[in-house]
Amino acid sequence: MSDVQLIEVGPRDGLQNEQTLLSVEEKIEFIARAVDAGVRRIEAVSFVNPKRVPQMAGAEEVMAGVPRVDGVSYIGLVLNRRGLDRALASAVDEVNAVVVATEAFSRRNQGCSVEDTVSAAVDVVRDARAAGLATTVTIAVAFGCPFTGEVDPRRISDIVARLTDQAAPDEIALADTIGVGVPAQVRDLAARTTDSAPGIPQRWHFHNTRNTGYANALTVLDSGAGAIDASVGGFGGCPFAPSATGNIASEDLVYALDRSEVITGVDMQGLIDTAAWLGRALDKNVPALLGRAGAFPAVRADGDI
Amino acid sequence: MSDVQLIEVGPRDGLQNEQTLLSVEEKIEFIARAVDAGVRRIEAVSFVNPKRVPQMAGAEEVMAGVPRVDGVSYIGLVLNRRGLDRALASAVDEVNAVVVATEAFSRRNQGCSVEDTVSAAVDVVRDARAAGLATTVTIAVAFGCPFTGEVDPRRISDIVARLTDQAAPDEIALADTIGVGVPAQVRDLAARTTDSAPGIPQRWHFHNTRNTGYANALTVLDSGAGAIDASVGGFGGCPFAPSATGNIASEDLVYALDRSEVITGVDMQGLIDTAAWLGRALDKNVPALLGRAGAFPAVRADGDI
Repeated sequence: MSDVQLIEVGPRDGLQNEQTLLSVEEKIEFIARAVDAGVRRIEAVSFVNPKRVPQMAGAEEVMAGVPRVDGVSYIGLVLNRRGLDRALASAVDEVNAVVVATEAFSRRNQGCSVEDTVSAAVDVVRDARAAGLATTVTIAVAFGCPFTGEVDPRRISDIVARLTDQAAPDEIALADTIGVGVPAQVRDLAARTTDSAPGIPQRWHFHNTRNTGYANALTVLDSGAGAIDASVGGFGGCPFAPSATGNIASEDLVYALDRSEVITGVDMQGLIDTAAWLGRALDKNVPALLGRAGAFPAVRADGDI
Repeated sequence: MSDVQLIEVGPRDGLQNEQTLLSVEEKIEFIARAVDAGVRRIEAVSFVNPKRVPQMAGAEEVMAGVPRVDGVSYIGLVLNRRGLDRALASAVDEVNAVVVATEAFSRRNQGCSVEDTVSAAVDVVRDARAAGLATTVTIAVAFGCPFTGEVDPRRISDIVARLTDQAAPDEIALADTIGVGVPAQVRDLAARTTDSAPGIPQRWHFHNTRNTGYANALTVLDSGAGAIDASVGGFGGCPFAPSATGNIASEDLVYALDRSEVITGVDMQGLIDTAAWLGRALDKNVPALLGRAGAFPAVRADGDI
């Protein structure tokens, strides 16, 4: 039996590229619905400059309104000390710092070097830990870069080793930011990360841009443990990555996990209903497939399933 | 290195549920484009009653017009002796007979019992082999039935054993007709089929109805060999299966295989172009993602990839 944890990143990555801005109240309702469906880790907010990512405005107000439930942990994305101060003031439970794997993406996305992102993440992890928060570092474009193509996996190993050496975060996340990865890469990066950061739990972030996202996610099961990011409805993308499309959808991932006899504790129908609600709020069709195809097996009116 | 063969089923399964009927000339062009892209096995036609599946009318005319190229093998779907006679007269290279895994689906889809489909397939295999054709038997709804839900995998083992015992087809195909399967089922059915039909090559047929199709297909790599059905553009479905959607898309599958360093001999860009052509012919958006997302890495005008 594999042990896989679903991390709902819809309120952060799912929303940040959507043109229709949700109100603080709507964002709180989204998060509350995910909690009701059984999700226990939620990337709820991003403490970035709202001028760069307007959808992420009001992070403090969102965190002030989310349901505080035993066992539910809220994650805030944090890029620097200023973001960490906002995170601490907002009583998130965890911070997620971001390191970028390639110079080109780092310059264009964050306006600084890879080295700068590593230093900033190390500082965020140390200071967040000192304040009692759990810490993750996400390595962006770990599977491929929209500007420079293939990413040498040894670059990822080096970054993981330096993060482990300098800050030892509680979790390391490998992100396929632009949705180019395949399962063979997941297996390779999982093994390399285990080598470079033995004992540190791994987290995975996939986009389904080229129909490989779910295959990648299910490959995480092969290593027996891990946390997987997903987004209700499969909305999402990256404002700074060309052609990036949505995260893998939480309900479609839970369907596959349920049928693989992996226990997630998450109610798929609750996620499907939340996706439908979110689609209405964003005035968009839901990219996820479960809401259209229906659960299986499903009881039907005529007594057949 | 895995050995995986792509079987293009777009001209048969990809088209059969589409409302816009293609002309014989268009169907021939579709097939010729797939051949040009490097596909070497193509399910080109179905010898069913065209009153039941209007898109499959003109099978003889299609086969009279397809390019005859060394190494290219054309498959015709055949349900009975009458279909086999048409197949033989049309000079297909292979026949694909169909057995149904559940009584409910068999009664509603083919109007007969499971036992009847097994008997018919055994007869088709024997007679086709006597005529010098290669033979496949596909087991439909092997991963789940839209009418009765879960399919006991021991049913599949039993059917495989009987087919092997009575006819020993050259290939056995396991079909997730309604797109409900997960990789754990692929592994289980692959092992069971190897046990019940040792030495008989396996072929796999997946629909991406619930976003598990590509994960299932890539799981076939784990067993080191196999043939995988896919459909250019991801069009397709089954007229008799509620909510069935398209096959996995050939170009999206080739993308994943290429990046997994599996050699298919198929040109992804040729498939993407064919999908765009087919979308225009059917007046539909292409469900596949590669045409939208683009290959990776891709050379761009500014010299970046």
